[in-house]
Amino acid sequence: MNSVKNTMVACCQVAPKIGDLAYNRTLSERVIRSAALQGARVVVLPELVQSGYVFADRNEALSLSETADGPALTLWKALAKELDIIVVGGFCERLDGDELANSAAMIDAQGLRAVYRKAHLWDAEKDIFSPGNDAPPVIETVHGRIGMLICYDLEFPEWVRLPALAGADLLCAPVNWPDGPRPPTERPAEVVRVQANASINRMFIAACDRHGHERGVGWVQGSVIVDADGYPLAGPAEQGGEQMLLATLNLSEARNKRISARNDLHQDRRQGLY
Amino acid sequence: MNSVKNTMVACCQVAPKIGDLAYNRTLSERVIRSAALQGARVVVLPELVQSGYVFADRNEALSLSETADGPALTLWKALAKELDIIVVGGFCERLDGDELANSAAMIDAQGLRAVYRKAHLWDAEKDIFSPGNDAPPVIETVHGRIGMLICYDLEFPEWVRLPALAGADLLCAPVNWPDGPRPPTERPAEVVRVQANASINRMFIAACDRHGHERGVGWVQGSVIVDADGYPLAGPAEQGGEQMLLATLNLSEARNKRISARNDLHQDRRQGLY
Repeated sequence: MNSVKNTMVACCQVAPKIGDLAYNRTLSERVIRSAALQGARVVVLPELVQSGYVFADRNEALSLSETADGPALTLWKALAKELDIIVVGGFCERLDGDELANSAAMIDAQGLRAVYRKAHLWDAEKDIFSPGNDAPPVIETVHGRIGMLICYDLEFPEWVRLPALAGADLLCAPVNWPDGPRPPTERPAEVVRVQANASINRMFIAACDRHGHERGVGWVQGSVIVDADGYPLAGPAEQGGEQMLLATLNLSEARNKRISARNDLHQDRRQGLY
Repeated sequence: MNSVKNTMVACCQVAPKIGDLAYNRTLSERVIRSAALQGARVVVLPELVQSGYVFADRNEALSLSETADGPALTLWKALAKELDIIVVGGFCERLDGDELANSAAMIDAQGLRAVYRKAHLWDAEKDIFSPGNDAPPVIETVHGRIGMLICYDLEFPEWVRLPALAGADLLCAPVNWPDGPRPPTERPAEVVRVQANASINRMFIAACDRHGHERGVGWVQGSVIVDADGYPLAGPAEQGGEQMLLATLNLSEARNKRISARNDLHQDRRQGLY
């Protein structure tokens, strides 16, 4: 662990426009600069913020895809270097042989640190993307160890466990949570699952959702930053819409997995049994 | 699945007295009868309701332990037969060689259907109990398939996954959740984890907590019955104290793991990766 004790993390809940790559770049630059100006050192953007989410078909997704050397990540690299921040954001990644992945990039002042490819695909994504087969990466940064995964991945605690066991202090999760029915007084189950994943691992999680209707699909708009006990430090915003969630985290707290005199959340796992 | 479509489930949040086995039997009989009178067909009691929880030492626990043929389970068997209900409750179980287990019994009109021994031990329990090594049982009953596990087990979603994958429609969880600090406006993380475990498996969960201070320990008093999407149908009670939570469940809903046109929560697991 480095000497930086408190790290301000931002989740930028914005509304990308499907297919308008230039608009989405401008949008991401605006909120990245705004977050950094307010003191954020880690800035999380939604899933597929580079392209939008509701593709008409695979061909449209292919036409909007970029590599890690494409315009969106080139912009984020320049901003991360200029502002000395970490950016985590989602993009429609073109792989070899015209394959596509629903990916997230982690970029810091050094450049691209990792790309993660969503392993659990949602609904029509199965027609478009190849699922990732590599565990969520955990990267040593100046602020601590940061992992990332994407949206539906969060519904598989076995998958969340992997970066947690690899030592992630903070998990950044670009998401696009499609909205659905729920009891009106209840916090969305998507947020509840983020809380639970954090609490069973004593790991901070920053989940960045989107807003804006896109081809008939709406979103939970439930961006949230939770502490290592699973309680929200910022969000979920009740009113939805564009949100800039900011929370200052002492990431070193996640190094302590003890929750009683005799209990350690990771050491108490009965590894032989599951 | 049988023809019974709606099953009323009760969680009886009571305060056993440490060491007063006769009082605890009378207490359990009172609330089991009350729950059945109100229509409950499945009655869940807290962890260690037969003995109390905060043992002075292992010797005290040994002196309070019973086998499955002891007075507490004999009473529950008689009540289950008389009232034609299922009882799930916790007891301090004496094993061979004076070993002890923190156990739960499932009893129906046929008699004892299963005993489960807590696999993840909390704090001083490690000085008293032998941890169980067998997966949570899932029992075919007239109301559907019912599983059980105990308290801290719920913090290990890999463990909860086992009865879920074995087909449990309802998971009954006797708990004693020790109280601790949390943000005053937040639902306890213990309840949040129950919700998340239900939602990632589309499985009903009935968690029955206790109340009453015992040797300096207080409890969350957060009993809750959640639906297969993870939303509470009854509880958590805000005021604490003795509670009789009742909810009518259509357990067959848990047989459908689909959450979108293309997604099935269990089939979407990437089994080769974890």
